[in-house]
Amino acid sequence: MSQFDVVVIGAGPGGYIAAIRAAQLGFKTACIDAGVNKAGDAPALGGTCLNVGCIPSKALLQSSEHYHAAQHDFAEHGITVGNVKFNAAKMIERKDAIVTKLTGGIKFLFQKNKVESLFGKGSLKGRNGDLWQVEVDNKGEKTVVEAKNVIIATGSVPRPLPLIDIDNVNVLDNEGALNLTAVPKKLGVIGSGVIGLEMGSVWKRVGSEVTILEAMPTFLAAADQQIAKEAFKIFTKEQGLVIELGVKLNEIKNNKKGVTVAYEVGGQAKEETFDKLIVSIGRIPNTEGLNAEAVGLEKDERGFIKVDDECRTNLPNVWAIGDVVRGPMLAHKASDEGVAVAERIAGQKPHLDFNTIPFVIYTDPEIAWVGKTEEQLKAEGVDYKKGTSGFAANGRALGLGKAKGTVKVLADAKTDRILGVHMIGPMVSELVAEGVTSLEFKASSEDIARIVHAHPTLSEVLHEASLAVDKRALHG
Amino acid sequence: MSQFDVVVIGAGPGGYIAAIRAAQLGFKTACIDAGVNKAGDAPALGGTCLNVGCIPSKALLQSSEHYHAAQHDFAEHGITVGNVKFNAAKMIERKDAIVTKLTGGIKFLFQKNKVESLFGKGSLKGRNGDLWQVEVDNKGEKTVVEAKNVIIATGSVPRPLPLIDIDNVNVLDNEGALNLTAVPKKLGVIGSGVIGLEMGSVWKRVGSEVTILEAMPTFLAAADQQIAKEAFKIFTKEQGLVIELGVKLNEIKNNKKGVTVAYEVGGQAKEETFDKLIVSIGRIPNTEGLNAEAVGLEKDERGFIKVDDECRTNLPNVWAIGDVVRGPMLAHKASDEGVAVAERIAGQKPHLDFNTIPFVIYTDPEIAWVGKTEEQLKAEGVDYKKGTSGFAANGRALGLGKAKGTVKVLADAKTDRILGVHMIGPMVSELVAEGVTSLEFKASSEDIARIVHAHPTLSEVLHEASLAVDKRALHG
Repeated sequence: MSQFDVVVIGAGPGGYIAAIRAAQLGFKTACIDAGVNKAGDAPALGGTCLNVGCIPSKALLQSSEHYHAAQHDFAEHGITVGNVKFNAAKMIERKDAIVTKLTGGIKFLFQKNKVESLFGKGSLKGRNGDLWQVEVDNKGEKTVVEAKNVIIATGSVPRPLPLIDIDNVNVLDNEGALNLTAVPKKLGVIGSGVIGLEMGSVWKRVGSEVTILEAMPTFLAAADQQIAKEAFKIFTKEQGLVIELGVKLNEIKNNKKGVTVAYEVGGQAKEETFDKLIVSIGRIPNTEGLNAEAVGLEKDERGFIKVDDECRTNLPNVWAIGDVVRGPMLAHKASDEGVAVAERIAGQKPHLDFNTIPFVIYTDPEIAWVGKTEEQLKAEGVDYKKGTSGFAANGRALGLGKAKGTVKVLADAKTDRILGVHMIGPMVSELVAEGVTSLEFKASSEDIARIVHAHPTLSEVLHEASLAVDKRALHG
Repeated sequence: MSQFDVVVIGAGPGGYIAAIRAAQLGFKTACIDAGVNKAGDAPALGGTCLNVGCIPSKALLQSSEHYHAAQHDFAEHGITVGNVKFNAAKMIERKDAIVTKLTGGIKFLFQKNKVESLFGKGSLKGRNGDLWQVEVDNKGEKTVVEAKNVIIATGSVPRPLPLIDIDNVNVLDNEGALNLTAVPKKLGVIGSGVIGLEMGSVWKRVGSEVTILEAMPTFLAAADQQIAKEAFKIFTKEQGLVIELGVKLNEIKNNKKGVTVAYEVGGQAKEETFDKLIVSIGRIPNTEGLNAEAVGLEKDERGFIKVDDECRTNLPNVWAIGDVVRGPMLAHKASDEGVAVAERIAGQKPHLDFNTIPFVIYTDPEIAWVGKTEEQLKAEGVDYKKGTSGFAANGRALGLGKAKGTVKVLADAKTDRILGVHMIGPMVSELVAEGVTSLEFKASSEDIARIVHAHPTLSEVLHEASLAVDKRALHG
C-alpha cells in the first residue's frame, strides 16, 4: 500500500497549491481528484475555479467585451466594421482551450514537483496506527493509500434551489452558464451574487435581455454600499440589466420552450418566461462522499468542516482548507490556506489575515475591495475618515474609454491607518493589489498620498482618493 | 501691480500641481502659461503632457488596439466583422476631445482652488525688495506681477536634429505624430525612446510599415536588459516593427513626396524613403525666454536649471521642478516635485525618493519598472537574487488574450529587500504600483510572496516572481 507524508483530497486552487507546497517542503505528497474535462473523457485538475469558475468566466468576459466594443465603441475611435456577427459556440471553444491549457499546466506542475496525482474520489477510511487510510474510488475501482497528514480541499458546489432542478439545458448552474452555444434571447438569473452578475453581464453584452432576480432587499450586501449603489445604477440604468431586489420566488416551470418564473416583488405578482435560466444562489461546502460521519469529522451547523484558525479539523493530522471551511469562498483564500497548512505541517508558523484578502467581481466596470466597508466600521463603532475620487477625469481611463467609477479609501480617524479600500472602475481587479499591500504594511492614507504614482495610470485615482482623506485632493 | 505669495511659470503637470498645492496651503498663487489649444484660438493648460504628450498618446493607443483586435483577435473570440475600415482623422478627433476635456479640467481646478491663471509667456524681470518681478507676455502685451516665491516649471521641448527641420507636415515631432489624419504607408522614426516606440507602435497597429532608426547600439538602455531584449523580440519578430540599432544618419531630405533618409548601419549604407518621418531623439530643458542669464539664474552644462536636492535654484526663493531640472523627464516626477516645493515654501519637510519613481512605456505589451536594473546592481557591486515569472500561464492574461511578458523581482541577497521590479506584459503600467509601494515600505520579496493576491489577476505574476526569488514559485 502506497504511503505518503501528505495526501490532499481535491485539486482545486486550494488543494493543488497545498500539494505543490507540501512537495516543495520535502514531503512525499499525493493529490486525489475526480474532476474530468468537459468531454468527460480525461481527468482535469484545477477544480471548479479552473474548469467551471473563475478562469472560464474571464475568458467569456473578454470575448463579450470585444463584441460590445465593436458594436458600441468603435465608431468613436474611427473604426467602422461591416456586419458584426457573434458565434457563441466559437467563444466557448476559445474558453475551453484556455481551460485545457491551464488544467494541463497543473498536471505538468505535479510532475515537476513530484506530486503523485491520483484519479478518483477521495474519502477518509480510518486510522492504521499513526496513519490515515484514504480511499480512492475511480468509478468503483477502489484503492487505499496511507498518509500521515490529510488535507481536505473538496471545495463547494452550487446551492440547490428547491423549486427547480438543474438540467443544464434550460436551467443552468455555473457550469451550464459557461457552455451556452447560442445567445439566449431572454435570460433569467436567480441570484445577484458574483456568478449571477458576471454571467448576466457576459450574456447581456452579447445580446441577451437579462433579468436578475434577487431575494435580498440589498444589492451586493457584502460590498461597501456606496460602491454597490454606483454599480447598481450602472448595471441597470446604463447597461440595461434588469435587477429585481427583494424577490420572493413562487414557482418555476421548465417547459421545453423555456423556463417560466412566477415571483413577487414589492407585493406585486409577476411572471416571466426565459429561454434559459441561470441559478446562482450561492455555494455550499462539498463534503459528500468524504465519509466524514463515519470517521467522526466534525462539521458546523451550515455543513462546513469545522476548523480552528489554522485549518486544523477535530481529527489528528487532518486539515481542511478553502470553500469547504469557514471564511470567504475565494480561490486565493483557498490557495493561501493551502500554502499555510503545508508550511504548518513542516513546523513553520505562517499567518493568514482574512482582513487583507481582496474581493473582486469581474463585471464591467469591475468591482474590488479589501478591508472594512463603511457599514462594517459603523457597526463596529470605529471612528473613520474617508476620501473618494472618480475615474471621470483620469487620463488613462479616458484614453481607454472606460472613465466610470470611484475609489474610496477609509482610514482610522485618529491614526490615519487605512482600514478599507473600495473600488468600482476599469481594471480595479489589479488596482486592489496596492490596497492589499497597504493594509499588509499598515500604511496610513498619507503614505499612499505621498507615494509617486505613474502618470497616466488608473492607479492615480487611488492616489487621489488617499489625498482626499486629508481633504487635499489635487484633482478633486 | 498684482502681488502673489507664489507665482508658477508653466502649467504642465509640474506647474499646475505646484500651483494647486500652494493655493491649498493658503498661499495667494498665480500660474503663468502660454499654451494654446490645437486650433490656436484659446489658452490650453496642461503643458506637453496633456496637450501633446502622455494623454493624447494613450488615447491613440486604445484606438489602435481596438483596430488591431478587430483584425487579428476577433475571429478567435467568435466575432466576425465585415469590411474593417479605419479613419485616422476620427481617431484624432476623439483624442482631441479627451485633451480638451482634461485641459478644461485644469482651468476648473484653478478656479476651484483660487489659483489665478495668467495667459502669456512668463519671465523673470528682477527683484523689487523681497519680491520677484515676473513678466507676463501675452503676444506682446506685457504686464508684470510680483511674487515672494517663484516656481519655474517650463518643461522641455523636443531635441532638434541638426540634419532636418521639423515641419510637422512630413517631418514630425511628438505634436505632429499625434495629429496625422491619414495612416502613412511608410513611417520612419528617428529614435527608439518612449515617444518613438509608442508612436511607432500606434501607427504600425493601424497599418503603417514602421522603421525605427536608433543611434545607440543598445535597445532601451535605461531598462533592465532582460526586459528590453524580450521587448525587442516581440516588437520586431512578432509585431513586424523594423528597429535598426547603431544607426549613423548621413542625410535627410524632405521632398514633397516624402522624406528620404540616408544612413549607415553595421558598416552598410542604406537609404529609405518614408511618407512621414517622426523625429524623437529625446527632449531638452525649455528655458527659452525665461531671461535666466539677465537675472543670474544658473544652468548646468546640459542646459538644465541647476537645483539642489530640494529644487532650490541659486536665486533666493526661486525654485525649479520637472523636465527643466535634473532627474527623469516624467510627468509624475514633475508633479511630485511640485507638491514638495509648495510644501517646502510652507515650511514642511517633504521627501521625494528618485529611486521609487516608476517608469512606464505604453507599447503593447507595456513595459514598466521601478528601482534598480540588474545592470545597475552589477555596476554598483550589489549582491542580489532574482525571481522571474511569465504571463504565459496566467489565467487572467489568457482570458484577456494578452499572455505575453515577464515580471522580474530583484532583491538584496542578504536582506531580501526588494531593489527593483521590472515588467513587460499586459497592464504592467498598473501592476508597477505594487512594486513602488513595496520599495517605499522597504518590503522584502518574502513580504510580497506572503501577501494574498486576488485570483485570477495579472498581479499574481508579480506574486510568483517574488516566490521565485526564494526558488519556491508555485506555478514555475
